[in-house]
Amino acid sequence: MMTIGLENLRVVLVNTSHPGNIGAVARAMKNMGLSQLYLVQPLKFPHAEASSRAAGADDLLASAVVVDSLDEAIADCQLVAGASARSRTISWPTLAPRECAEQMIDAARTGKVALVMGRERTGLSNAELEKCHYLVHIPANSDYSSLNVAAATQVLTYELRVAALARAGEATKTWKSDHPFATAGELEQLYAHFETALTELGFLDPDNPKQLMRRLRRLFGRAHLDRIEVNILRGILTTAQKGGKGPRNKVTRDE
Amino acid sequence: MMTIGLENLRVVLVNTSHPGNIGAVARAMKNMGLSQLYLVQPLKFPHAEASSRAAGADDLLASAVVVDSLDEAIADCQLVAGASARSRTISWPTLAPRECAEQMIDAARTGKVALVMGRERTGLSNAELEKCHYLVHIPANSDYSSLNVAAATQVLTYELRVAALARAGEATKTWKSDHPFATAGELEQLYAHFETALTELGFLDPDNPKQLMRRLRRLFGRAHLDRIEVNILRGILTTAQKGGKGPRNKVTRDE
Repeated sequence: MMTIGLENLRVVLVNTSHPGNIGAVARAMKNMGLSQLYLVQPLKFPHAEASSRAAGADDLLASAVVVDSLDEAIADCQLVAGASARSRTISWPTLAPRECAEQMIDAARTGKVALVMGRERTGLSNAELEKCHYLVHIPANSDYSSLNVAAATQVLTYELRVAALARAGEATKTWKSDHPFATAGELEQLYAHFETALTELGFLDPDNPKQLMRRLRRLFGRAHLDRIEVNILRGILTTAQKGGKGPRNKVTRDE
Repeated sequence: MMTIGLENLRVVLVNTSHPGNIGAVARAMKNMGLSQLYLVQPLKFPHAEASSRAAGADDLLASAVVVDSLDEAIADCQLVAGASARSRTISWPTLAPRECAEQMIDAARTGKVALVMGRERTGLSNAELEKCHYLVHIPANSDYSSLNVAAATQVLTYELRVAALARAGEATKTWKSDHPFATAGELEQLYAHFETALTELGFLDPDNPKQLMRRLRRLFGRAHLDRIEVNILRGILTTAQKGGKGPRNKVTRDE
């Protein structure tokens, strides 16, 4: 497994009622590369429903640490963030998930860090929140703001993973062809070919070709063509110029 | 409810097996302020387990649109993003959730936008993926990369909400056509026209049309065509089918 700095992170579930949620949290954690699960007085654990919802993450359930108090679960942690669904009577430093994840990943370079998730219905008590350095709040629909505890864990651990990947210098995915991109020179040849072929075909008004050519440039420029795509387009143009029955595109059979 | 530009977004679930997942997706959507759920041939729906997992989001289940095909679910959409858990044999433009959310929120200002989620075990088929402009990939643990469909929906709709909230203030510049984007239905007509015309012209090998058609879909999907561009491309195809001397493209003179 790639090491991206998530080893020092743990998720702490406080008084979870439904064992299915514990399993779903384990799955969410493992999907995001976290492995340490602490359970503060779970109502039912171990439980078949936890294992079932964990799918392939039952190793996290097997190694979960069950403790009697939140204090025990976070005693060795240098940073503690508590998930909070709503604003509190007590005002406490509250971060958005992205901001919180960056702080946690920073701190995890030098020590243990905990993300604390509260009870399904009532969340964390004020006394528990006060043990946290920060609260983290997912910006939900104000008319329906209470996320399922596993869904909230999924969002928060996702942000942790994204922050860790960014920190580790992992490139995020974007459009990347399996062939080299066309050069500007190849693109100019393509546009010249379009202009010649469309003029021959009578599609382009030779007295005013610019409007259409500008639209084609804009379209294909946006698409960021690779070399094989340029070859395909030019093959189509050549075939159309000959009135059809041109050679079939060899390129598509080479792959 | 605060209007932040999520009204044009829909989530499409393809062939979902477990009704509990449909309910959990509805809850995730409502938490993030989305309301339009489309179900392509769900195995069991309606179902008590869907309602139970939906918690307070059963209004989304009641208004869910059940359809027979993905085509129906996305026909009126101007941008379609498909969730993908793994890298494919075919390379398709793939975005990280954050980047994809920004594109989708941009597009949702002027038209309908779909996020397509595949089957629990097997995801989306290649034919289904090819109907998407982009794939979106959650950067999961490579040793255990398959998120539960509701968990994945939670992450992706969270990013949509964050992007919408960020956008709600300022207007940033990205690709914005002066014409409406083409709908998925119009794009399917374009691809059918390509296939017919290139077969007639002898450019497409009728025994193995898929390679080339897939490359064309990928190219034009990436470019995110507007309606006038579709008209231009179809005009070129029609002219080529006639062996040239077709009517000049009226469109370019109307502007």
